[in-house]
Amino acid sequence: MSNRSKITYTFTDEAPALATYSLLPIVKAFASSADIDVETRDISLGARILAAFADKLDGQQIQDDLAYLAQLATSPAANIIKLPNISASIPQLKGAIAELQAQGYQIPDFPEDPQSDADHEIRARYSKVLGSAVNPVLREGNSDRRAPAAVKAFARKYPHSMGKWSMASQSHADYMRGGDFFSSEQSFTMDKAGKVRIEFVGKNGQVEVKKELSLQQGEILDGMFMSCNKLRAFFEQTLQDCKETGVMWSLHVKATMMKVSHPIVFGHAVTVYYKDVFEKHGKLFEEIGVNPNNGLSSVYDKIKSLPSAQQEEILQDIHETYAHRPEMAMVDSVKGITNLHIPSDVIVDASMPAMIRNSGQMWGRDGKQKDTKAVMPESTYARIYQEMINFCKTNGAFDPTTMGSVSNVGLMAQKAEEYGSHDKTFEMAADGIMRVTLEDGTVMIQHEVEAGDIWRACQTKDAPIRDWVKLGVNRARQSNTPAIFWLDQERAHDRELKKKVDLYLKDYDLTGLDIRCMDYNEAIRVSMERLIRGLDTISVTGNVLRDYLTDLFPIMELGTSAKMLSIVPLMAGGGMYETGAGGSAPKHVQQLVEENHLRWDSLGEFLALAVSLEETGIKTNNTKAKLLGKALDEATGKLLDNGKSPSRKVGEIDNRGSHFYLALYWAQALAAQTEDAALAAHFAPVAKALSEQEATIIAELNQAQGKPAEIGGYYCANPELTSKVMRPSNTFNAVIDALV
Amino acid sequence: MSNRSKITYTFTDEAPALATYSLLPIVKAFASSADIDVETRDISLGARILAAFADKLDGQQIQDDLAYLAQLATSPAANIIKLPNISASIPQLKGAIAELQAQGYQIPDFPEDPQSDADHEIRARYSKVLGSAVNPVLREGNSDRRAPAAVKAFARKYPHSMGKWSMASQSHADYMRGGDFFSSEQSFTMDKAGKVRIEFVGKNGQVEVKKELSLQQGEILDGMFMSCNKLRAFFEQTLQDCKETGVMWSLHVKATMMKVSHPIVFGHAVTVYYKDVFEKHGKLFEEIGVNPNNGLSSVYDKIKSLPSAQQEEILQDIHETYAHRPEMAMVDSVKGITNLHIPSDVIVDASMPAMIRNSGQMWGRDGKQKDTKAVMPESTYARIYQEMINFCKTNGAFDPTTMGSVSNVGLMAQKAEEYGSHDKTFEMAADGIMRVTLEDGTVMIQHEVEAGDIWRACQTKDAPIRDWVKLGVNRARQSNTPAIFWLDQERAHDRELKKKVDLYLKDYDLTGLDIRCMDYNEAIRVSMERLIRGLDTISVTGNVLRDYLTDLFPIMELGTSAKMLSIVPLMAGGGMYETGAGGSAPKHVQQLVEENHLRWDSLGEFLALAVSLEETGIKTNNTKAKLLGKALDEATGKLLDNGKSPSRKVGEIDNRGSHFYLALYWAQALAAQTEDAALAAHFAPVAKALSEQEATIIAELNQAQGKPAEIGGYYCANPELTSKVMRPSNTFNAVIDALV
Repeated sequence: MSNRSKITYTFTDEAPALATYSLLPIVKAFASSADIDVETRDISLGARILAAFADKLDGQQIQDDLAYLAQLATSPAANIIKLPNISASIPQLKGAIAELQAQGYQIPDFPEDPQSDADHEIRARYSKVLGSAVNPVLREGNSDRRAPAAVKAFARKYPHSMGKWSMASQSHADYMRGGDFFSSEQSFTMDKAGKVRIEFVGKNGQVEVKKELSLQQGEILDGMFMSCNKLRAFFEQTLQDCKETGVMWSLHVKATMMKVSHPIVFGHAVTVYYKDVFEKHGKLFEEIGVNPNNGLSSVYDKIKSLPSAQQEEILQDIHETYAHRPEMAMVDSVKGITNLHIPSDVIVDASMPAMIRNSGQMWGRDGKQKDTKAVMPESTYARIYQEMINFCKTNGAFDPTTMGSVSNVGLMAQKAEEYGSHDKTFEMAADGIMRVTLEDGTVMIQHEVEAGDIWRACQTKDAPIRDWVKLGVNRARQSNTPAIFWLDQERAHDRELKKKVDLYLKDYDLTGLDIRCMDYNEAIRVSMERLIRGLDTISVTGNVLRDYLTDLFPIMELGTSAKMLSIVPLMAGGGMYETGAGGSAPKHVQQLVEENHLRWDSLGEFLALAVSLEETGIKTNNTKAKLLGKALDEATGKLLDNGKSPSRKVGEIDNRGSHFYLALYWAQALAAQTEDAALAAHFAPVAKALSEQEATIIAELNQAQGKPAEIGGYYCANPELTSKVMRPSNTFNAVIDALV
Repeated sequence: MSNRSKITYTFTDEAPALATYSLLPIVKAFASSADIDVETRDISLGARILAAFADKLDGQQIQDDLAYLAQLATSPAANIIKLPNISASIPQLKGAIAELQAQGYQIPDFPEDPQSDADHEIRARYSKVLGSAVNPVLREGNSDRRAPAAVKAFARKYPHSMGKWSMASQSHADYMRGGDFFSSEQSFTMDKAGKVRIEFVGKNGQVEVKKELSLQQGEILDGMFMSCNKLRAFFEQTLQDCKETGVMWSLHVKATMMKVSHPIVFGHAVTVYYKDVFEKHGKLFEEIGVNPNNGLSSVYDKIKSLPSAQQEEILQDIHETYAHRPEMAMVDSVKGITNLHIPSDVIVDASMPAMIRNSGQMWGRDGKQKDTKAVMPESTYARIYQEMINFCKTNGAFDPTTMGSVSNVGLMAQKAEEYGSHDKTFEMAADGIMRVTLEDGTVMIQHEVEAGDIWRACQTKDAPIRDWVKLGVNRARQSNTPAIFWLDQERAHDRELKKKVDLYLKDYDLTGLDIRCMDYNEAIRVSMERLIRGLDTISVTGNVLRDYLTDLFPIMELGTSAKMLSIVPLMAGGGMYETGAGGSAPKHVQQLVEENHLRWDSLGEFLALAVSLEETGIKTNNTKAKLLGKALDEATGKLLDNGKSPSRKVGEIDNRGSHFYLALYWAQALAAQTEDAALAAHFAPVAKALSEQEATIIAELNQAQGKPAEIGGYYCANPELTSKVMRPSNTFNAVIDALV
């Protein structure tokens, strides 16, 4: 067994977990032919809760698989297929706890309002399970995302719809021209490891330490703030402008990821748009606990406690706002849900590509598409959207049948840049000075701030940067494609970063490579000019741009970002292959339970697995593994070409049927290859059996549909029940099970 | 006298000539202090006519000064101040002939319809005087234009108005995406000197030689064509688009300079816009000689011969066109003059900057400003306007108080590129093949063309290119400013050009210089990004871009292109200094004759003279000349600052008063300088005298105004009379005349 390799397949939640019951047996069966073991590690919400309370579980303990994976991620041997998991909100967490308790697990209730020390201790344990608790632990590497060849070819052949652009379009992206994070950014690099203090100096001279950080040698620290007054003036000006020009108003922030700063920005938008309402009822709103950072929905929620006459007056005042404010883009015009209803509805990285794909238009109150001012206060990254809008006005909509591709190598490891800033973000309570000082008192960053301003610091460690540069060079070499480092020389942070990039690039032989550094505007423009000429470009970017661009370009090229190949080459040498950016999809579970049809598309798993197998082959010099990967890619291409992805409708092919075709095509490709005769001989009978029994298997798979399915739980479904539901074809199972 | 230098001052026509009577005595007086003679050479229309008929003039012969200047231009000693002259149309030519005949010159009448050989001979002589007959002869060098420091400083202090841009503006520049000159361009460089034939091969295989050219070694020849069908389809599509979006339609070509190709393009616009009219009345229009290439005015002209009922029907049909066509931009909404009235009203290099300065808007039928689709069929250069429009939408209007400057070094010598293509431009009479062949029959360029297509060839000689590269490098060095060669790698011509640029750049030590080559879009974008940051950039461009950019940027920066310093460093080593891009201004002459007020601004002459003096100083190691030049620049700056430019209103300071202040400030600056004590001593009493007598002189100058002035001719005014009119202050004259 010493020369067997191992792939670690994560067991997660909801639809991806259900799909795993069907797909994993196939994967294990095929992988065994190359002496590869596929182990499963459970990082579902339920498993993580149980792991957190192992000491309370008498004989019910399970292994802490997340801890195991965290360890594995820092080992060169790691080869992890990472499926999407639940980033649990409190209601989700409580649901999972209840389900586990019902299954007999002795775990404590979630302390809503902890009082005792014991309560606090329990609460602290649960807090570690809450929110985005898996990715930060596992992402011990940067990000390498691209459109796989099969997916790109499919999009070229069967292009998604793209709204036509008019040269006369009035749509645009508007952003602050001063007073925002971009214009105040200061940055420095630590000469040597040490502590820094983030301090607030009040008007009275009193110094308050807001945070103490231990920084590594070579670590970059940024400080920046957004002026509350300028932000509010900007919102007002955009509203006036829309009123004058008749263009619809729309706000685009990322309140989910930028969970501290952007809800505040969102709140200001709400109180500026509904200024008269908040001025008139401000005191009352405070009393009843309205929080504009939660959107206008907070008003609707909280006023329910008021007498109905008072409620009606407020609703009337809200209604009157619309008479003198410009039209606002709607999230759901039928239900009257505006852009300002809740902060998580319109998320810039998803909403802007959607708008651009849609002729630069969003939906108005009357359900009609209209030209829109997309308001994105932070100018740092907003400019790239205006650049793309201008480009589409000039050159028309992108054409998926001819356009090239923009892949991404993104700085991500160890919570780089803004995405790690949440615990260093502060809303100023008073006027004063925010500063960052070294241990010896040297002031490295200093800003004069006013009450209401949002100040934040961002950290970027040296090792991830070094790794990211390596990844950029490797990707350029492997893809034989020009790579552009997006480094804006007007940003203090990027100037620090560029010093390192210039230095670390010297470690590589760049002969034959085309590697350049450009400002964001230039970088996106050059990438787009290449795109419309059918040319590919690698974007090598920071963390936020990684997030934005891996939606923006895929949505133009492929119609979705879920079909991207998403690799995290771990810094320790292993690899993690992420799948299905589309989330964990609770609606899919509901459909399965109600009518036994799972529409989850495992395309992401297919793609990730192929790379995982290829990597295994390369690292262990295992030809069979390489051929398995190559054949899997061929099978995926054929599956797309033949339209064997899951349908949304019951009675038609679903996730399970799609897996059958994958197995069929995979076996056929392996049987057809000529590089390894033994492997071909091994899979020839499989291909034959599956092919001959296609009608029977599909009939068995489809007959299962149409009635409720019993899986024994939502967060922690019963494995035996679920496996039975997800593998309903005995004919298919027999062929697969015979392989192991 | 052997170490005296010489500056040659051209005597031209109309307002600039009138101003010369006042300015030249001052210039001569000041220049003599540095041992510089200022000679005058008469290249006025009248003088050129007389020179052409010297053999017919018994005892009235004058020297052929243009021939003299042409010779001088190819000598290293040339130092020419070139004022604007008349590019005579036939009516102007006939006017000048009549005036000369009345003054007793025995020159023949202009043969309108030459029959005899003698008539033809006369007509041929007059043809050489017609049109742009001076610049092509004198421009034995490339172009070096920039905003002088004093002018730039003035514009920063007293900015011209700039229309605000809205991000929601619908204005844009639209151009063909295929089927135009840009997309068909082919280009090659001659290995060795030789002849080429431009041939048309008919469908029957018959070869017609359209033109034979003798090309030099290293000369670049381009061939390209515009598809008539695609051009017309493009026009129709732009009209449909405007109809849908409500944006106003406007055509921008350069029918004056591109006098063969663009009138045809213009004609197609007329017959597409008024399609129904031309379809219904086409046969009749042909009979009565309507030529759509002359605009809709040709219809109005020619139908005058028709019965009034028929006229009215046609006018009614024209009127009805407006009901189903989009609104068209007006040249004069009061008079109902549209953009399609005559081809010379809207000239792209002037009209586009005006539109961009005016919030991207033009004037509609109701006299109101509106968002506009600027239609420019040829995409080659049109793209730069769309680029600037997008830039203004994103960044707002340019701010003259803070913006940098874009100067130009332009390839111009020996009729380079498109501007020399008129005799090689053909409108196809039939379908077939246009090709360019070498003497040995090798086909170098070949296009399949259809009847109506416009085919043209452009020449660019090697020596001018070599000189242009030198000029670019020198300008970058002298101005210590980054220089961008605008070379579009998607253009066949520019690819040939770039080979030479790359080669010739090797002749220079580029240490410390920032010289780059960029596609047009990138070049203008980078230049604009620098502009709004207050940074200067040198644009090193071909001939058309030279023409366009030296209007576009100056109009943004200075409000006019007339204030640019325009130098033609002659290839033989001399220098020509062009003044006043604003033309020769017939209206100014009329005002002088009627009310003795000349509003002509000699700023261009001041600027040109300063460089001319500086150059003299450098070339002859004449410190006094350098100081004269430097002091003149100071004086010009002071004049601008003190508002001593000519007013438009009678009774206020005019051209002559402005000259007085120039003399005063110039003398003051010379008296104040400390580098040459003798020179200071020489001018101290002049400064004192002029300063002390300022009130008297201004009174004398202004008292002359308000009544008609007798100058004894328009084209050939009487020198004594004109001098008397232009030098009405005896006090001022006494000081000046005493200097010589």
